Amino acid sequence: MLLESVPNFSEGRDRATIDAIGDALGSRARLLDVHSDPDHNRSVFTLAGEPDELLEALVAGIEVARERIDLRSHEGVHPRLGAADVVPVVPLVAGAMERAKETALRLAERVGGLGLPVFLYGEELAPGRGPAFFRWGGVEGLAERMAGGELAPDFGPGELDPSTGTVLVGARRPLVAFNVNLHGSLEDARAIAGVVRESGGGFQGVRALGLELPSMGLVQVSMNVEDVEAAALHEIVARIEHEAAERGMELVGSELVGLMPASAVAAAAGDALRLEGFDSSRVLELRLLER
Amino acid sequence: MLLESVPNFSEGRDRATIDAIGDALGSRARLLDVHSDPDHNRSVFTLAGEPDELLEALVAGIEVARERIDLRSHEGVHPRLGAADVVPVVPLVAGAMERAKETALRLAERVGGLGLPVFLYGEELAPGRGPAFFRWGGVEGLAERMAGGELAPDFGPGELDPSTGTVLVGARRPLVAFNVNLHGSLEDARAIAGVVRESGGGFQGVRALGLELPSMGLVQVSMNVEDVEAAALHEIVARIEHEAAERGMELVGSELVGLMPASAVAAAAGDALRLEGFDSSRVLELRLLER
Repeated sequence: MLLESVPNFSEGRDRATIDAIGDALGSRARLLDVHSDPDHNRSVFTLAGEPDELLEALVAGIEVARERIDLRSHEGVHPRLGAADVVPVVPLVAGAMERAKETALRLAERVGGLGLPVFLYGEELAPGRGPAFFRWGGVEGLAERMAGGELAPDFGPGELDPSTGTVLVGARRPLVAFNVNLHGSLEDARAIAGVVRESGGGFQGVRALGLELPSMGLVQVSMNVEDVEAAALHEIVARIEHEAAERGMELVGSELVGLMPASAVAAAAGDALRLEGFDSSRVLELRLLER
Repeated sequence: MLLESVPNFSEGRDRATIDAIGDALGSRARLLDVHSDPDHNRSVFTLAGEPDELLEALVAGIEVARERIDLRSHEGVHPRLGAADVVPVVPLVAGAMERAKETALRLAERVGGLGLPVFLYGEELAPGRGPAFFRWGGVEGLAERMAGGELAPDFGPGELDPSTGTVLVGARRPLVAFNVNLHGSLEDARAIAGVVRESGGGFQGVRALGLELPSMGLVQVSMNVEDVEAAALHEIVARIEHEAAERGMELVGSELVGLMPASAVAAAAGDALRLEGFDSSRVLELRLLER
């Protein structure tokens, strides 16, 4: 049974470190995609493998990140808490969530054994505790909450090394990490993020941040879309385009972080082509590969 | 090496005949899709298999069609020349065209041996002779051209039985059969078909007909899109929508006949989502299934 993982590491600029992490991951499981962003200063790897392969790959990648990344000198517009920041294990087929959760728990224990504090996150393993719950206040804030007894890691040491931080480990369903880049002000990007995210009354299952992209001279609405059936990507893009136009901003283009599930691709295509009910079962290659 | 075939049979209403053809095809190769249209009075089957499997499946399906379909009592808005009307063999991977052509030639010979006149069609096996070359004048016109010595079938008898007609056999690259349905007059549908098809100066590799759909009270621009890289489906839909608006017609929706290659789905999604350069290599399931 194949599982997926999409670990996020806090390095998006230094090619040698990104490659070293990729080598550690890719020599033990199948590395499907690497997305590095210099403004976020973050790299998102997509890998797949049998549970044991995935586990060994992630442990090896996290070890490399711990050696090579120092959060104290880290600068980047995306919030983070660890050199290996957030590591979700993702089921790829219906019914595989239990296996994903079990693998995430084994991973959390192994990473704790490396001497890194590990927090479980997300609805499946820590209900009510998403990444944002841990991230407010940054690494310093988290260190204080740990020192003050408010938060204790699920695995590993009770104190946080400011160089390597903590690792958030979870299990979740597939999501789409999707950014829309705009000409305009950070304030407006934040306002649009506030409109589209679920917590602002926007789209169900959408988390969104407004960020600045200094290297590109742009701003960004950076999103995780947790349920592409509840919130179609093309509707989110249309909404952002509308909100941007109202603020006199220009939509420059979108950016996919990692890979997109076929269901989301088919939904967007079906809308564009006016094909009602079109879904991934109508994609030739996917039908061929079914058995 | 898997090949695909998309045989078109001249029966879109009688469920027993459609099922009998589907059973003959599907018991010998993998039947991926059946699209039956009562107005066209035509069914399009999509199947895949190793060359020998595909050959046997198609011969069996054509035998069933010959027994069960009588063109003399056939009514339908789509032009046709045979009970089994047009049978393309399609390579699914680069470099497989030679195998597709060889399989099409073996099929043509076998079908000729069943006592049906077979014409090879299309650029790969009969350059300059597309389906339209054979179809003008209908079955009667073709029978006259054969009787007058203008046309001689490539396989099978030199005379045409008006009940079963002829079979066009070819090899071609994958195409998308795609219809757009509109409220309006047949005259306007034909005019729009004339604007979008290549021969009218429209999109490269697009063949289009304007048809009436009496059962739905609509008209249709019925298309074959031969090269979705040269002519993107979303651009064709946008053009039809524009032409329809200029004529005061309403676009009701589109319809896919058969399955769509992932490249076309990804191109339409990428455009809708403003993802420049997005292609099928970014679709998770397709990446997973690569080896």
